Amino acid sequence: MNKQSNASIPQSSKTAAVSRVRQRTRLRLIAAAESVMARHGVEGATIQAITEEAELGIGTFYNHFESKEELAKAVFALRAEGLGKVLDFISGKYKDPAKAIGYIQRTYVERSLADPIWGWFLIRAEFALRQYDETFRDRARTDILRGIQAKRFTCSNCIETAITVTLSSLFAVTKQILEGRADKAAAMELNELLLRMYGLSAEEAAKLARSPLPDFDAMLKEAGPRP
Amino acid sequence: MNKQSNASIPQSSKTAAVSRVRQRTRLRLIAAAESVMARHGVEGATIQAITEEAELGIGTFYNHFESKEELAKAVFALRAEGLGKVLDFISGKYKDPAKAIGYIQRTYVERSLADPIWGWFLIRAEFALRQYDETFRDRARTDILRGIQAKRFTCSNCIETAITVTLSSLFAVTKQILEGRADKAAAMELNELLLRMYGLSAEEAAKLARSPLPDFDAMLKEAGPRP
Repeated sequence: MNKQSNASIPQSSKTAAVSRVRQRTRLRLIAAAESVMARHGVEGATIQAITEEAELGIGTFYNHFESKEELAKAVFALRAEGLGKVLDFISGKYKDPAKAIGYIQRTYVERSLADPIWGWFLIRAEFALRQYDETFRDRARTDILRGIQAKRFTCSNCIETAITVTLSSLFAVTKQILEGRADKAAAMELNELLLRMYGLSAEEAAKLARSPLPDFDAMLKEAGPRP
Repeated sequence: MNKQSNASIPQSSKTAAVSRVRQRTRLRLIAAAESVMARHGVEGATIQAITEEAELGIGTFYNHFESKEELAKAVFALRAEGLGKVLDFISGKYKDPAKAIGYIQRTYVERSLADPIWGWFLIRAEFALRQYDETFRDRARTDILRGIQAKRFTCSNCIETAITVTLSSLFAVTKQILEGRADKAAAMELNELLLRMYGLSAEEAAKLARSPLPDFDAMLKEAGPRP
């Protein structure tokens, strides 16, 4: 602030005023989009319907957003902020972080289910994810059931949810490594966390997950083709 | 088989032969697609390049697949089958299901990282997923760190991976409930599993996750607006 010369103050006030008007128009478009999307869904909300709701011209829309998708992201961010406020409140309310995180997670799910716009964002995951789930779900069930039968795992009342956690986190962690957002050690860490979740002690989960990975290609070759 | 009359055998053999030829052509297209995709990526593999590689006409392509995306799904399924064989081998090799599932999970990640085509399917998750991760990652980190500092959680060496498991499984479970593929109780089951993963005992995780959810809207209203 000290660096600013007196001469620049009027100009900067004017800029600030322009910026405030711009911000208000932007928020009007986002509010209109939320309202139209709540009535017609995100797909059904046209740019025309949104600008009519906001009582603004189509040109004004393109001064603020490049596409409907960009506006949808802004709606998503605003929704997330609203949900975030509730989650912050819960976080501040409970001293026990285990209790707080539980309430936070379940509130997150309940809110998502109650909000059609938020739900649209969640459902809009593309075919790879669904195809992937169909491909590996039965296999994961077999492996987890085997652990339960051998009394190594203790999650008999939540097998389907355990499968979902397993598959969605394997997908997400591999994706992060591929994108360079996590390093390869994340595969071991994930295995350790999932083994704890299945019911192994922290010590045993760490030991198993950190043991060296055998060379299965060589072993498979040696075993020869299946009969 | 007994119901089949003798008269129909020639016809049925002919049908079987046609079906075998059809299946071979289909596999030739899939093999060609795999080869072109390995060289040029899935996006860069044109239908023309694939049919040229298979030495077949474009018309033949459309006799088998409606679009490149449909062919990509078939490639995905074949890749999954190959990976599945390795995972089945591991599953059969180890008596301890905890050891087996660990090797399976880590082999899955290693194979996915080594295969550019498989990686393409994993990376191809759309903006909602990434936007969602960016929105909630910092918040999740705060909540998990709070649990570690209070010595309620014990996963200090794997915070980022624990966040990824938390966010990807919250996303996936909510999506499943919205699509009617899981019931609402899955939210509690997920919370129970995640609390175990953070380090709580199975008993305490079950108790906390199954406690009634307070009415946070009413509580937030009573607390009034933030200063």
